[in-house]
Amino acid sequence: MYAAAVQDLIDELGRLPGIGPKSAQRIAFYLLKQSSDDALRLARAIHVVKERVTWCRRCYNIAEGPPGEASGNAECGICRDPGRDPSVICVVEEPRDVVAVEKTRDYRGLYHVLQGAISPIDGIGGAQLRVRELLTRLGTEEEVREVILCANPNIEGEATTLYLTMLLRELPIKLTAIAHGVPVGGDLEYADEITLGRALAGRREVVG
Amino acid sequence: MYAAAVQDLIDELGRLPGIGPKSAQRIAFYLLKQSSDDALRLARAIHVVKERVTWCRRCYNIAEGPPGEASGNAECGICRDPGRDPSVICVVEEPRDVVAVEKTRDYRGLYHVLQGAISPIDGIGGAQLRVRELLTRLGTEEEVREVILCANPNIEGEATTLYLTMLLRELPIKLTAIAHGVPVGGDLEYADEITLGRALAGRREVVG
Repeated sequence: MYAAAVQDLIDELGRLPGIGPKSAQRIAFYLLKQSSDDALRLARAIHVVKERVTWCRRCYNIAEGPPGEASGNAECGICRDPGRDPSVICVVEEPRDVVAVEKTRDYRGLYHVLQGAISPIDGIGGAQLRVRELLTRLGTEEEVREVILCANPNIEGEATTLYLTMLLRELPIKLTAIAHGVPVGGDLEYADEITLGRALAGRREVVG
Repeated sequence: MYAAAVQDLIDELGRLPGIGPKSAQRIAFYLLKQSSDDALRLARAIHVVKERVTWCRRCYNIAEGPPGEASGNAECGICRDPGRDPSVICVVEEPRDVVAVEKTRDYRGLYHVLQGAISPIDGIGGAQLRVRELLTRLGTEEEVREVILCANPNIEGEATTLYLTMLLRELPIKLTAIAHGVPVGGDLEYADEITLGRALAGRREVVG
């Protein structure tokens, strides 16, 4: 129905996560109406990312290398920072979780990005994640004293935490997981029963 | 917080309509994880569209020209089709509305795409739309007998219909507008009162 080039663009946009056919159409028409410069900036940004951005060879967070040399030897800004504490590794699912933890400004250790979570329904097990790379790190980086499991508080995240606990508990390394409980600023009335149950189970003595 | 290239991509994605900062981040990470080939197909589709796709010089629908020659002289598939009836022009807001009308398979006339609707809040009046081009068409295409106003049934669309009615009613051309009423397959109970009011006002005698 549309010109072939427009239909191609709609199809490509529709493949992006969270973009349905209607949104894809809307975005395609938006790009059509924009000046060439504005629309091509997006195309260029995709090019630059695919050319320069790769995974940190140590923690598998996002790392930026010089153009063309992206693959293989880049290190992310956190791993390169000599001010970080290499004795603690916080294990997260995705690079966006690194950003979330960094925003707390409370954490000065390193990370390990699994690049996913265990999800049997989607056929994702330990072999599809950066678990082997984590084990290699724990075997070679002798200064590691603690591993903090920081997966998402959902089914896949819990399965990932359980899986890593089974795998790592024999190692002579302190293994911790982030606390679940009622969110700060929340209202007890609106907390779901599972969260509240976790908050009760994880109660701590008030030092008085 | 992110590598500059990734932040650039997130920013560019965030400029698209309907894409908030969270979706932009999600899509950027999705593109990062995809193979270069898959991600660059989207960049290429944008390039091709900006190179080849332009507006039909007659009706301002989408038209595809040979690469490099996009601007100026292209005609859309509908205007080029000798089987269409040039005596009727259906005035719509956007190219997607052309597709919607075409899907009915009931209409064999031509179109005129305004490329927007009147919206004082957004600073869009008749001068920002392809209204002058419509008047030129009505002045030069002598075979036009009927203009069908087919704007969206919302505030901007109604304003556009009103504006065009004022402008065109003196011309010796039949001027019609699409009917508003209860949608087919709908349930009277769930029709809002304005729609139902319009349906009553537009009632027709049942030929028995």
